[in-house]
Amino acid sequence: MQEFMRALAAAAANETLPRFRQLPTVINKLGTGFDPVTEADREAERVIRALISETFPEDGILGEEFGLSNAGASRQWVVDPIDGTRAFISGIPLWGTLVGLTAAGRAVAGMMSQPFTGELYVADGSGAFLEHRQARQRLSTSHVESLSDATMCTTTPALFSRVQREAYDRLENEVRLARYGTDCYAYAMLASGHVDLVVEPGLNAYDIAALIPIIEQAGGVVTTFDGGRPENGGNIIAAANARLHEQARAFVADV
Amino acid sequence: MQEFMRALAAAAANETLPRFRQLPTVINKLGTGFDPVTEADREAERVIRALISETFPEDGILGEEFGLSNAGASRQWVVDPIDGTRAFISGIPLWGTLVGLTAAGRAVAGMMSQPFTGELYVADGSGAFLEHRQARQRLSTSHVESLSDATMCTTTPALFSRVQREAYDRLENEVRLARYGTDCYAYAMLASGHVDLVVEPGLNAYDIAALIPIIEQAGGVVTTFDGGRPENGGNIIAAANARLHEQARAFVADV
Repeated sequence: MQEFMRALAAAAANETLPRFRQLPTVINKLGTGFDPVTEADREAERVIRALISETFPEDGILGEEFGLSNAGASRQWVVDPIDGTRAFISGIPLWGTLVGLTAAGRAVAGMMSQPFTGELYVADGSGAFLEHRQARQRLSTSHVESLSDATMCTTTPALFSRVQREAYDRLENEVRLARYGTDCYAYAMLASGHVDLVVEPGLNAYDIAALIPIIEQAGGVVTTFDGGRPENGGNIIAAANARLHEQARAFVADV
Repeated sequence: MQEFMRALAAAAANETLPRFRQLPTVINKLGTGFDPVTEADREAERVIRALISETFPEDGILGEEFGLSNAGASRQWVVDPIDGTRAFISGIPLWGTLVGLTAAGRAVAGMMSQPFTGELYVADGSGAFLEHRQARQRLSTSHVESLSDATMCTTTPALFSRVQREAYDRLENEVRLARYGTDCYAYAMLASGHVDLVVEPGLNAYDIAALIPIIEQAGGVVTTFDGGRPENGGNIIAAANARLHEQARAFVADV
């Protein structure tokens, strides 16, 4: 499985990396300007879907760009070819290619690839790992159990609704450090033990499915704000451990 | 000069990179826990100062960690060994090692090194360049001249005073896209043409001196909110070009 994840990451990188930091061309007379991120998104999902269909023809695939195929399958691959398109268009290497695998609705394996830095975060049931420059390292989340010692990430507080924002601000007041602008990279840092909490509203299934196994198999806890399973997305809270999750979730449980 | 900048970047990387993503050790009985970022900061500034003193013994050096030496010199090196310590401790590779050179108070050369990604942004009077994986590329800022097409970065809106924050929020409402959490990396993306505006309050001289030549020699404009030279830090607004700078500065000129 890790071999297959590596193949998916490499195929997607061939489509994304050459288009990263390409400046959009001036719109031509026909109004058909070149939009690197849209092209990268579509082409990466295309190659990922092709590899999955070839290798696991019975499995379902849910992708951000091309929707659902094999809807009835109990195994389903969940694909976001570029999570963090706003980071991508700003030249900032915190975007990632996400591919997760669910079995009977439960996320069991996943990968996040950041090809500019050359990082591959991957989990397949045997643990969560970072592969980087020929090295492979087992990931584990931090033992930070108190909010006052915790580092928390969210992509931007502007995504919260007003009532969520009030709850989030109260939580942010309790933590040691809050970081913004992190997209999927925040969950990789959570799995790696460098970040202790990630809180984000309104995620889609394809924003989170790949990351769940990486977080859980590194020792973390990830649920919706109301404590449910996160596979279908929604309002997501991820923490380094159960104690921290419980304390942080108390702030957002009702929003 | 570019050769010397490369030597500074390499020496600093030897001190910072091995400590990046090292988890702090548990505080021992004597209360002397190991703090990777503080160590990296100090040791990197030490080797940078040593190289400068050896090569340019007459020049002054102003560093974040060890203050000012050769105070009367007309050439002064301005050093921030790790800009973005909060990114550093969160495992996020948007921090950088900054070294600038001022002559008679004017920034004339500078570098920003991000050793995890292997990027070196450098300007020495002949232009601004990115060196990455054996390739060298001349940088130029974007031609975006309207706020409604602009991407803007700031590290976090929480750093603004109340009145600054109101002005910043009005400006943010006008731009196409706002990104947070970017530290010095935002200025590198501005010089590269991927970001169009950076607005940040309360910078120190060592936060900005190294970046001024990179921005200016790529075609950008950087001043304080009130339109003055940015070498001494303060409230900083940087833009891809003069037209955009003028429009954006109108929002913050009086705060």
